[in-house]
This record gives sequence, C-alpha cells and structure tokens, in this order.
Amino acid sequence: MPHEKPAMKPQSNLPPVLKRLGELIGPDLERTNAIILEQLNSQVELIPKMGAHIIESGGKRLRPVLTLLSARLFGYTGQNDALLAAVIEFIHTATLLHDDVVDKSNTRRGRATANSVWGSKAPVLVGDYLFSRSFQILVAHGDLKVLQIVADACAVISEGEVMQLVATNDLSTSEEHYLEVVQRKTATLFAAAAEIGAVLNQRPTEEVRALARYGLLLGTAYQVVDDALDYSATNEVLGKSVGDDFHEGKITLPVIHAYRHGNPEERAFWSACLERKEFPDKALSHAIQLIRARGSLDYAMQRATTFAAEAKEQLATLPATPEREAMAMLADFSVERSY
Amino acid sequence: MPHEKPAMKPQSNLPPVLKRLGELIGPDLERTNAIILEQLNSQVELIPKMGAHIIESGGKRLRPVLTLLSARLFGYTGQNDALLAAVIEFIHTATLLHDDVVDKSNTRRGRATANSVWGSKAPVLVGDYLFSRSFQILVAHGDLKVLQIVADACAVISEGEVMQLVATNDLSTSEEHYLEVVQRKTATLFAAAAEIGAVLNQRPTEEVRALARYGLLLGTAYQVVDDALDYSATNEVLGKSVGDDFHEGKITLPVIHAYRHGNPEERAFWSACLERKEFPDKALSHAIQLIRARGSLDYAMQRATTFAAEAKEQLATLPATPEREAMAMLADFSVERSY
Repeated sequence: MPHEKPAMKPQSNLPPVLKRLGELIGPDLERTNAIILEQLNSQVELIPKMGAHIIESGGKRLRPVLTLLSARLFGYTGQNDALLAAVIEFIHTATLLHDDVVDKSNTRRGRATANSVWGSKAPVLVGDYLFSRSFQILVAHGDLKVLQIVADACAVISEGEVMQLVATNDLSTSEEHYLEVVQRKTATLFAAAAEIGAVLNQRPTEEVRALARYGLLLGTAYQVVDDALDYSATNEVLGKSVGDDFHEGKITLPVIHAYRHGNPEERAFWSACLERKEFPDKALSHAIQLIRARGSLDYAMQRATTFAAEAKEQLATLPATPEREAMAMLADFSVERSY
Repeated sequence: MPHEKPAMKPQSNLPPVLKRLGELIGPDLERTNAIILEQLNSQVELIPKMGAHIIESGGKRLRPVLTLLSARLFGYTGQNDALLAAVIEFIHTATLLHDDVVDKSNTRRGRATANSVWGSKAPVLVGDYLFSRSFQILVAHGDLKVLQIVADACAVISEGEVMQLVATNDLSTSEEHYLEVVQRKTATLFAAAAEIGAVLNQRPTEEVRALARYGLLLGTAYQVVDDALDYSATNEVLGKSVGDDFHEGKITLPVIHAYRHGNPEERAFWSACLERKEFPDKALSHAIQLIRARGSLDYAMQRATTFAAEAKEQLATLPATPEREAMAMLADFSVERSY
C-alpha cells in the first residue's frame, strides 16, 4: 500500500468555484497530494491504509488550498508551499479521526468513517501519528515561526473540541460561546493555513495578520453554514447523516436561535431532545420544522454571510492578484455551498 | 483549579532508590512539577482538572527524572532542564490518556482512569491538548534538535501503539515483534528523555547517542518487567488490575514464552482465551499457573535483566558523577521493582 500511488482526484465532483481554484493552483495541489501520500508512509501498514481511506475520500482540500493560494499570492515559487499545505491537511485529518471517534460518527464525506471500519481504537492512535508526523515535517522544514503557528493552532483546536464537548446537551449555551467554539475548533486551522503562506514569503506582520484574520472569518462562516446544513441538507449532499448534531445533542446556532425564540412548548421539546435525550416520534422533522418556523436557518445564514463579507474585507490591503480574487470567491462559496 | 497549587508529593511512597534520586535532583523535580501545573493551565476548566487528576496521581516521574539527571550529569545549571522534563511528562500523560481510552482501562496508579471518571471522549481531546501544548513549549524553547527528537519520538510511539493494537489477540506474535513494540511504545520516550538532557548541554554526538541508547535499553527492561508484573503482582502494588493484559488479549513476553513451550492442551487454553476471547472459569489463575510452570516469568525477568545490564554499559564513557551512578541504580531498579 505505501508504495502504490492511488489515483487521487481532488478536482472531481467539485463545484465550479473550486474547479476554478483547481485551474489556478492545480499543479500545486497535485504536488500537495503527492507529498501527503509520500509522508503517510509507515512500515505499520494500517497507518497509510487508514490515512488514505480518509484523505482520499475526496474532501474539498479547502485548508491546503488556502496555504497554496496565500503562498502564491506573494509570488512564491519554491516547493515548501505544498509541504506546509500537506501538513495542514494532516492535522485536519487527525482531528477528523479523533472527532469521529468522539462523536461515534458512521459516515463522513459519503463514506464509512475510520472508526466504523476499524473500530474506535486504531483511529485514536493513527490520529496521534498524523499529529506527530506533522511536527516531524515542520521540524525538518525548520521555520520556528511556522512551527509556532501550527502548534498554537493545535492547542486552540483541542481546547475548542473540549469546550464543545462540555457544552453538549446544554441549552444554556450562548451564541457567543458557540461562536468561540467554532472559531477554535474549525476557524483556527483555516487561519493558520492562510497565515503560513504569508510567513513562507516573509511578509510583514500586517499582511500575515490580514491573512490569518481572513482565514479565521472564512472558517467561522464555513462552520456556521456547516451547522445550518445539518438541519437543511439531504444526506446525499451532506455526505453524512442529516440530524447528526441534533441526535448528538450539539448546541449549534440554529438550535440556540430557535430555543431563544421558542414558546414554552417548543422549549420543552428542545429540552427533552437535547438535554434529556428523549426523542419523541419524528423528532428530527419536528426540529427542522421549528427551526424553519422561527427563521433560525435564515438567521444562521445571515451571520455566516456577515463573517464571509468580513473575511473578504481583510483582503483589501493585499496584492490584487488572481489568488486574492480566488480567496474572495472562496469566502462567497463558504456561504453559498449547499453541500 | 488552575490557580490552585495542589500539593504534589512526588517523593511520597517511593522506594529507597527513587528517594535517593529525589535527594539528588529534588529541587529540579519540584521545578518540573511547578512547570507542569503552570503549563496545564487553560481557560477550559476540564483540561487542568483532568491533567491534574492523572499527573498528580503519583506516577514515578521516571521519564522527567532521566532528563534532569542527564542534564545534571554534564553540569547543567540553567532552568530549561525542568521545562524539557515537564514536556516529557506531558507527552507521557497524553499517551496514558489515549492508552486508557483504547484499552478501556478503569484503574491506573491505584486511581480511577480519566476515561472511567469523564467517559472516553474528553480524554482523547485532552490528550491532544497535552501533545499540542508540549510542542508549543518546545517551540518557545527554540531548539530544533530537541524538537526533532521529541517529534520523532511521538511518531515512533504512535506507530508502536498501532503495532500493538494490530498484534492483539494474535498468538503468532514473535518475541522479536513484541520487543519492537516495547521499544517503540515505551522505550523511545525513555530514550528521548535521556537524550535531550545531553542535547541541552550541547554534548558531542557520541555522548548524546550513549544516553539515548541507555534510555532505550532501560525503557525496554522497564516495560518487559511491567508486562511480567501483570501476571505476578497484586492489584495493590500494581496500581491497576492484575490480568488486564490477559483479559485484553495483549500478547506479552510471558505469554509468548508459555505458548511456545506449551503442550497442545496448554496451547488450546491460550488460544481460547487470547484469540477467541473465551475465558473458562478461573482462567487468570490457570494462566498464571501455566506461566509459572513453564518458567516464563523467569525468562522474562532474565531478558529484562540483560537489557538493564546493557543499559548500564552505555554509561561507561560518560562522566563518573553521582548522576551517572543514579542512572545505573535506575537500571537495576527497573528490574528489581516489585510494583
């Protein structure tokens, strides 16, 4: 397995905006994919097997795309952009493996999760391997600033994951707390991904910060939409089961909004399902109905739209290149995507 | 909780040899403990809580002791020895958290495991936090060589854990394979711990290697004895349940030896328990009886004694200091300890 080169098709089934990104940084993405496969290598067979299972399942590669775009935005011509992009995807993959174990998820990107194929033990350990491998690669790369950004991001991400876990089944979770969790567990890696592209070019602090901020806002918009889709998409387009968050007791923005604006009867329903885990017949349909009736999806999408707009504003001071344009498109896409 | 300073008593209930180590590097251990508590800090309450639960449970601090001894062996007088020792303990703690989730262990060091107190989800995420925090600290310390040693160690450790998992319930596991797992999952961190003390003193490669090799052999002896104790100790001295490995289907040296030398009836017994997970009445007592009858504990202890002796040999070229003497004592202790 480690010596095979499975055909990776990062650009298949992508919406037009991502296809265009593929045109812009296609060869860079190919290099990134090659590095990912190469670095997944381990004499312990299960590691590349499980790594490939999740990495080849056709995620959108949004995070490495950010690193590549950010590096190219400043005219980077070296090879290390793909290396750093691969590291970002490794860390993302490690968090997915651990997330799916923690959530006992069965489906991800339309495929069986690693834990549903191999049980919950191996993905914990393979996730640890991917984390370690990421730091090995960064140490070999030798830039302490990049190491700092990634190590900081990993710490913040795991804090965010713990915060989310603690807030599970707790309907008193505020919108502010929800957004802090979103920033930490999701947006921080988007921020790091965009930031390290600028660091690779040794750009001034102001530009590095603008890109980090862009990534943070983009990632926030992305996750808020993701959480909304859990109450509005179909299984096919979502790649996982609609209502997973609901059944897991995750307190996301649509729920926070619907609960806040619900009448006593509605609040009793939310409390039964999300706090006491007592799901009446057709609970999910009823939840979706309430969320629609209270305008909670619209509210969530509105918030996401604002974050995406703020993300685009961060780009104003950066060079007006095709990469910057693509970054702006990505911000729009994070809200418009219906999958 | 993060602002309290719980009384840590690393030297309580320690056997004489460790007490003597405490005399030699007591203040350094105190500094290490202070750094551990300080760095465990996070605004996410559960993190310092769970970290303290496991770190304060009175482990023997063998790994940080190695770093401190190794640094002092060459006359180190700075403050960074305790910082690196704390990182080593953090990484050890992260692996314990993940191990106990993977093994579904209930007891560790005579206390409830984190997963039995908080469920299996949070320890996965808090373990990730401790890994990340370790790299944050190392990045701030800024020595790429130390970063490389620790990142390499983490990758090898997780590979070892995966190897162990794959070999579970497989009686065809060879002694050689078992020892490779032991080296990776346990001894590698002992090696890194001893090695970074020398790196901190910018010692020549030869001395750095000698200490790494010492740590590797010491750690191997330690784990081989640990696995033997699982069939010979009492719950009280072991701090966890005797027979855990047996019931989890872990193929350790006593089993490999007893199976290899067993008659067909004995082999059938081992196969039923360890491969098919069919445990007859009083299976553990019978297993212990067979292991004793076949001299398998003696064999394991013999192997451990050889590793410990080889560990001591590595010290020959190093400065003849009290620290070196303590390292030799530690090698003896790794075999002699009956707990």
